[in-house]
Amino acid sequence: MRHLLGICDLSREQIERLLDRADSLAQLSERENKKLPTLTGRTIVNLFFENSTRTSSSFDLAAKRLSADTVNVRASGSSVEKGESLRDTVQTLSAYGPAAIVVRSPFVGAPGMVTRWTSAAVINAGDGKHEHPTQALLDAYTLRRRLGELDGKSVWIIGDVMHSRVARSNILALTKLGARVIVCGPPTLIPREIESLGCEVSFTLDGSERADVLYVLRMQNERMRDTFIPSLREYAARYQINGDRLGAKQLLMHPGPVNRGIELSPDVVDAPQSLITEQVASGVIVRMAVFYELLAGRGEPGSARKRATAVAPTREGARG
Amino acid sequence: MRHLLGICDLSREQIERLLDRADSLAQLSERENKKLPTLTGRTIVNLFFENSTRTSSSFDLAAKRLSADTVNVRASGSSVEKGESLRDTVQTLSAYGPAAIVVRSPFVGAPGMVTRWTSAAVINAGDGKHEHPTQALLDAYTLRRRLGELDGKSVWIIGDVMHSRVARSNILALTKLGARVIVCGPPTLIPREIESLGCEVSFTLDGSERADVLYVLRMQNERMRDTFIPSLREYAARYQINGDRLGAKQLLMHPGPVNRGIELSPDVVDAPQSLITEQVASGVIVRMAVFYELLAGRGEPGSARKRATAVAPTREGARG
Amino acid sequence: MRHLLGICDLSREQIERLLDRADSLAQLSERENKKLPTLTGRTIVNLFFENSTRTSSSFDLAAKRLSADTVNVRASGSSVEKGESLRDTVQTLSAYGPAAIVVRSPFVGAPGMVTRWTSAAVINAGDGKHEHPTQALLDAYTLRRRLGELDGKSVWIIGDVMHSRVARSNILALTKLGARVIVCGPPTLIPREIESLGCEVSFTLDGSERADVLYVLRMQNERMRDTFIPSLREYAARYQINGDRLGAKQLLMHPGPVNRGIELSPDVVDAPQSLITEQVASGVIVRMAVFYELLAGRGEPGSARKRATAVAPTREGARG
Repeated sequence: MRHLLGICDLSREQIERLLDRADSLAQLSERENKKLPTLTGRTIVNLFFENSTRTSSSFDLAAKRLSADTVNVRASGSSVEKGESLRDTVQTLSAYGPAAIVVRSPFVGAPGMVTRWTSAAVINAGDGKHEHPTQALLDAYTLRRRLGELDGKSVWIIGDVMHSRVARSNILALTKLGARVIVCGPPTLIPREIESLGCEVSFTLDGSERADVLYVLRMQNERMRDTFIPSLREYAARYQINGDRLGAKQLLMHPGPVNRGIELSPDVVDAPQSLITEQVASGVIVRMAVFYELLAGRGEPGSARKRATAVAPTREGARG
Repeated sequence: MRHLLGICDLSREQIERLLDRADSLAQLSERENKKLPTLTGRTIVNLFFENSTRTSSSFDLAAKRLSADTVNVRASGSSVEKGESLRDTVQTLSAYGPAAIVVRSPFVGAPGMVTRWTSAAVINAGDGKHEHPTQALLDAYTLRRRLGELDGKSVWIIGDVMHSRVARSNILALTKLGARVIVCGPPTLIPREIESLGCEVSFTLDGSERADVLYVLRMQNERMRDTFIPSLREYAARYQINGDRLGAKQLLMHPGPVNRGIELSPDVVDAPQSLITEQVASGVIVRMAVFYELLAGRGEPGSARKRATAVAPTREGARG
Repeated sequence: MRHLLGICDLSREQIERLLDRADSLAQLSERENKKLPTLTGRTIVNLFFENSTRTSSSFDLAAKRLSADTVNVRASGSSVEKGESLRDTVQTLSAYGPAAIVVRSPFVGAPGMVTRWTSAAVINAGDGKHEHPTQALLDAYTLRRRLGELDGKSVWIIGDVMHSRVARSNILALTKLGARVIVCGPPTLIPREIESLGCEVSFTLDGSERADVLYVLRMQNERMRDTFIPSLREYAARYQINGDRLGAKQLLMHPGPVNRGIELSPDVVDAPQSLITEQVASGVIVRMAVFYELLAGRGEPGSARKRATAVAPTREGARG
């Protein structure tokens, strides 16, 4: 693995290797000193062409916990506003010699293009409606910790599947891990031929009571203006997950931020079945695992032995 | 002490303990290497719902000088703009496992609410018109270094007391430390029953020539629009501290940023009596002391001895 | 050298000393661990009154690679918006005890004024149309690595010389290093008496085929509105460097970001003759060298020996 562009590129084995690495890093987050020296003196660039405090701070913190230096570049206020092309921006940042460039872009395929212009590892932090692979990995990781292996488990992904890169990446990841995935929402928000990704489709919540997991997507207000849905009130009546629709033994997930009262009723957000906060915590750990797998193995010839010692994620290997 | 929500919660002993800690950390700021390993591998979140370069950079730097990693989240550009509730924002950030969350909010009591949603220590960096405890602590620290014990010293707090959380926190802190506090300003800007906090009231500067300290508040331009004052010119005529009104042996303080020519004449800002720059320098030290007192004592069972050695703020204990 | 305000203040020897230091730091950028402990525990303030992702991230990264803590202050969102004067802003930031303050300002001479209000080293990151010394140093460094000594080499600086601090600083630096500099552009964009800086003037590209280096400036769109040029199309016809006008053995430079299709044709940007990406990489190294020269030699009496060991930019001296 040189880059992480999409779940579509990963085999089940590669996904499991990342989740196993996350497991071995997870004990870190229990410690007071959460820092490893793995990436000391290396630079991670976070290049975000869409605002996202959550995802960018999660990557930033994951990089810092591996002791990397970070350069955070946002579209607003940057040369991008002066009309610089993506290519020139990437070539400029690449001249800093970063170990990895994390890219979020409104354009499908942007991270793949970035790989042509840099020798850094490229990580997709969301590209248009295409993929958001670290979100799917952190979701799979969160579920695996709760449920063990995902083979045969059933996950309903509910809401605006059409515009959701989170849905796409999750369908791919969860089916590769053996789960059965059902996407559910109004016909206007379920793309045709989505079944080709390996999932089933339902236009009502009927049957969701037998799911192991309800994964609810964020409903963007602007979808109503675009006439994909008649009204938020009607949407909520048919698809909102509330106390009546969430079983006592079902797990609830959401990529955040939640619109309380739209796709979720306020009470279920903090219900015992909700994994929402756990997903955020997993985000830092899984992104550390991605950096680790992509970067810790690479390096100068001859220094492999030294590094192998330096990066071992054990209590002893850590600085403090 | 688990949190720092307001001076109202602190006893004289607790305040003095914080100031003593600041004293022991102050020698650091004299060194070339200003860094201590105290909080290595721990994370501090700065969550600012109001812009403030001064206060946020002071907290950020204080955290870094104790070797913490920092995550800075501002309202603009964050999920907060997407309508996320304070609670969801806090629960998200809290999932990163931070040692402390520093909160500034336009709403009175917000930091107290935050404590319910996180296991991190919560530090109030200003909540509406209520309190700004670290400002009061840094002011008390600055004064104590100049005057020794504050018992019996007289401090005039001059200006827009009504809208000032700085005034409120300072009245509480200085009176607890034994000082006599007189608040002074136009009747429209002095809240009724302010005496219940332990201060006296004056509507003119008469008598201020006998004060040890003149603490001048920032006059917001918008107060004139709100008709609290007839004009800035008239306000300045009656309450501006200038060369004539500042005694040679009086000390001058201001929380910054100064409106030169409004509440202070330009010459007094840089007069030898002015402690304004010293207040800023004290800010970093006092915020380090707050982090230290809230966080350095906490931790895993059994590791107390190790940490006690690691954090000692002595030349030997430091890394460089 | 206490500050770096402009190339105008530097002797040839001082410039060469900085470039030599950059040479000795350059090997760092080849290593996986790019970090030196030189400025551990010291603080660098980046104070930018104009947006510039490139320059500010380059300074930020240079400081971090020397292990300094950085405080980044931008005009927007800072107290500057509340009308605080440059002086008050600087005195506030100076109270943090920074080792250096890096300043970018739209006003000529601002960095020089800053030196009066702080004991920190002041580095000019661009002041109005005046100077941008680190850009000139990184350009000279990039060229010297390619060409060896610059004596007798000829450099054409092409475009909007009138409004360019980059042009000004480069004319000064390159002529001090012995190069012959010809500025070239439409008469409306070449300032009168520019020859007094030691360069020659040409209003056409005739003769540029004999240059060793073509240094092309960015053409701001707004110049057309200001009627300095009749149209971008006509400008490009006369002054754009394209495949026909760039010799196979000539070197091409540009300070970035490039307007592809205006001052440069898209193909030459990535041609083998182009040093544009190399300039960016040199930026971090040269700014490290500037910090090093200004700061590493300074310090407490008696600690010179200790520091000399600590800062040596050798494999052994580095942390990882």
